[in-house]
Amino acid sequence: MSYEIIDLINKWKIFAEDLDSRHVLFMFFIASTKTSTIPGISVAGPDPFSTLYTPTLDVEYLVLGKPRTIDMVPITPEGIPTPALITKAVFNLIKPSYLIVDSGVFREPKIPFISIPHKTVGGRIDEEDALPKDFAHKIFEESRILGRILSNKKMFIIIGESMPGGTTTAMSIIESLGFKGLGRTSSSSPNNPVKLKIDVFKKALARQGSFSSDYDVFRLIEIFGDPLHISIAGFVIGALERESKIMLAGGTQMYAVLSILKRLKTDLNGKIIVGTTRWIVEDITSDIKGLAREISPEVPLLYTKIDFKDSPYEGLKYYEKGYVKEGVGAGGSILTAQIIYGLSIDEIKKEIFREYERLIGSGYVKENR
Amino acid sequence: MSYEIIDLINKWKIFAEDLDSRHVLFMFFIASTKTSTIPGISVAGPDPFSTLYTPTLDVEYLVLGKPRTIDMVPITPEGIPTPALITKAVFNLIKPSYLIVDSGVFREPKIPFISIPHKTVGGRIDEEDALPKDFAHKIFEESRILGRILSNKKMFIIIGESMPGGTTTAMSIIESLGFKGLGRTSSSSPNNPVKLKIDVFKKALARQGSFSSDYDVFRLIEIFGDPLHISIAGFVIGALERESKIMLAGGTQMYAVLSILKRLKTDLNGKIIVGTTRWIVEDITSDIKGLAREISPEVPLLYTKIDFKDSPYEGLKYYEKGYVKEGVGAGGSILTAQIIYGLSIDEIKKEIFREYERLIGSGYVKENR
Repeated sequence: MSYEIIDLINKWKIFAEDLDSRHVLFMFFIASTKTSTIPGISVAGPDPFSTLYTPTLDVEYLVLGKPRTIDMVPITPEGIPTPALITKAVFNLIKPSYLIVDSGVFREPKIPFISIPHKTVGGRIDEEDALPKDFAHKIFEESRILGRILSNKKMFIIIGESMPGGTTTAMSIIESLGFKGLGRTSSSSPNNPVKLKIDVFKKALARQGSFSSDYDVFRLIEIFGDPLHISIAGFVIGALERESKIMLAGGTQMYAVLSILKRLKTDLNGKIIVGTTRWIVEDITSDIKGLAREISPEVPLLYTKIDFKDSPYEGLKYYEKGYVKEGVGAGGSILTAQIIYGLSIDEIKKEIFREYERLIGSGYVKENR
Repeated sequence: MSYEIIDLINKWKIFAEDLDSRHVLFMFFIASTKTSTIPGISVAGPDPFSTLYTPTLDVEYLVLGKPRTIDMVPITPEGIPTPALITKAVFNLIKPSYLIVDSGVFREPKIPFISIPHKTVGGRIDEEDALPKDFAHKIFEESRILGRILSNKKMFIIIGESMPGGTTTAMSIIESLGFKGLGRTSSSSPNNPVKLKIDVFKKALARQGSFSSDYDVFRLIEIFGDPLHISIAGFVIGALERESKIMLAGGTQMYAVLSILKRLKTDLNGKIIVGTTRWIVEDITSDIKGLAREISPEVPLLYTKIDFKDSPYEGLKYYEKGYVKEGVGAGGSILTAQIIYGLSIDEIKKEIFREYERLIGSGYVKENR
């Protein structure tokens, strides 16, 4: 098969049983954390400050085919474009329902989006709290309301995200909630700055003074987290209350969401899966399987076996060297196209190449062959 | 049957054919027009200025069970509560997916909602333009984008609204677009201020000087309209592009949306219906059937035959005297419960009475028996 299911305690069958009859909805949560501006932390933008614009440009490009706030598709310092291009290509094929949710982005996107009350840009966690007091709980509850009103028992909701710095705050959330996070989250760079990330966490710890992972979950998120993961966790709980089924479409970051859900004693059995890419699962600088085993063995981990070895474009071949890997629901959208819409990897790749060509044609991406 | 279908040119059957298999989504568009503050125009609030808060309080109550921005459920000067209570009661029973869209409300609601770029509160059309230059087209296009991304060919989308002053601007839109609007739109008061509404339109005309209904549709909306109806029209066109089916859940106002759609030469055959209440269809101060015949004979008009003659509460008996009648998708939500969910009028009424009782119990409504 062109995708694989890592099903640690045999829950995929329960999850999959009525999947075909459900209404598919994609949700993209966006937010910013100033943690992404720490030099060396994130390559999800041409330079540290620009990473604050990436979520906005990602979703504008996804919705409109081109960005609006700044006329620039997010690229790494090497010029490799955002993984949103994969999601966009898949959407060209399957035309699903989808929505954007702003949980606290630096610049509101210039497209219709759902606004979460109390949304706020996350602080730089090595120097300041991630969120003002009580905001983690507020953002959680507001997002839960959204999950509750939007979803129902006939829905399959695929949740993607865009927030540079997210693997750093995710690591920090996982670790602070009492799981083993350090050195386990991935990166959009092949040179995962693990040491720097751990330094950031240590500074957050030092800033905080005394600390125990038994602290209130919401307080821990305010110190060590960001607005995004707590918002997704709230949304998921609201949607599960209405019996939706959920795919967390992302890499190691989604285990920050799962660590919150587990600490809140949410029943996840047969209700939720993680969907990502081969590049994440094979990444030797992180450990998604270890995260899955420790945090949520009842949550099947799916990944698409897509590869860009035969890509005519260098920018995509870079994925095979460990660049980008995942983001903006890229892996989950491919998996959805495979599993629900029955598309082949070849059809999907052909459209990704076409979309890449289009980005070159419109001048957003330079091809350095 | 406890609902009736006025199907002028035999399109209901085409519309209904695959309805049961579609995913139901309710959308509530809210906006404000300062036209509602003209004394005597609107009773959708305890006084003219308060009508500006009504949409916000309506949707907060719908989502949370109680308002948040001000601790007050919208009432008429007589103390009769908002028709949102009907929608709320129906939602207690059917628990559908739904979303709120802000197209330009005076106060943003304190709940998750979709924000439309360029949204703006509408001007008082007897004194000033409804919208700044180019905004009608911008709001239309942004809403169309929302319709396009959110919907797909497996959806049935029911669109409700809350905007006091809406029957006045709707009348003005219909008339300015070249249909017969004057004296044909309804009111939440039994004493429909038809003369005053026509005066407002005449003042808008005089303010404008020369005028022809051949003008660009968007320019006419900027002079005579409001942000709400053009936003709904844009959304509908976007959703129809994706083959969703649509119910416009409202009274005579929805013919302002249809008049825009017709002027834009949208194909509506078998794709869209209007759903409302008996109180609107039987209203002698307006003419929904005339509007249907003239503007969109291909769009079936459905109405629920609910009555509150046997209501234990005076506030609901007032509906039988011509108060309130419709709003916040009340008629369409009852029809959806009847047609899609197979509920009986008696079950629905029982829950409406329970919800009314709850509003009395929590002190939001006084019962003057």
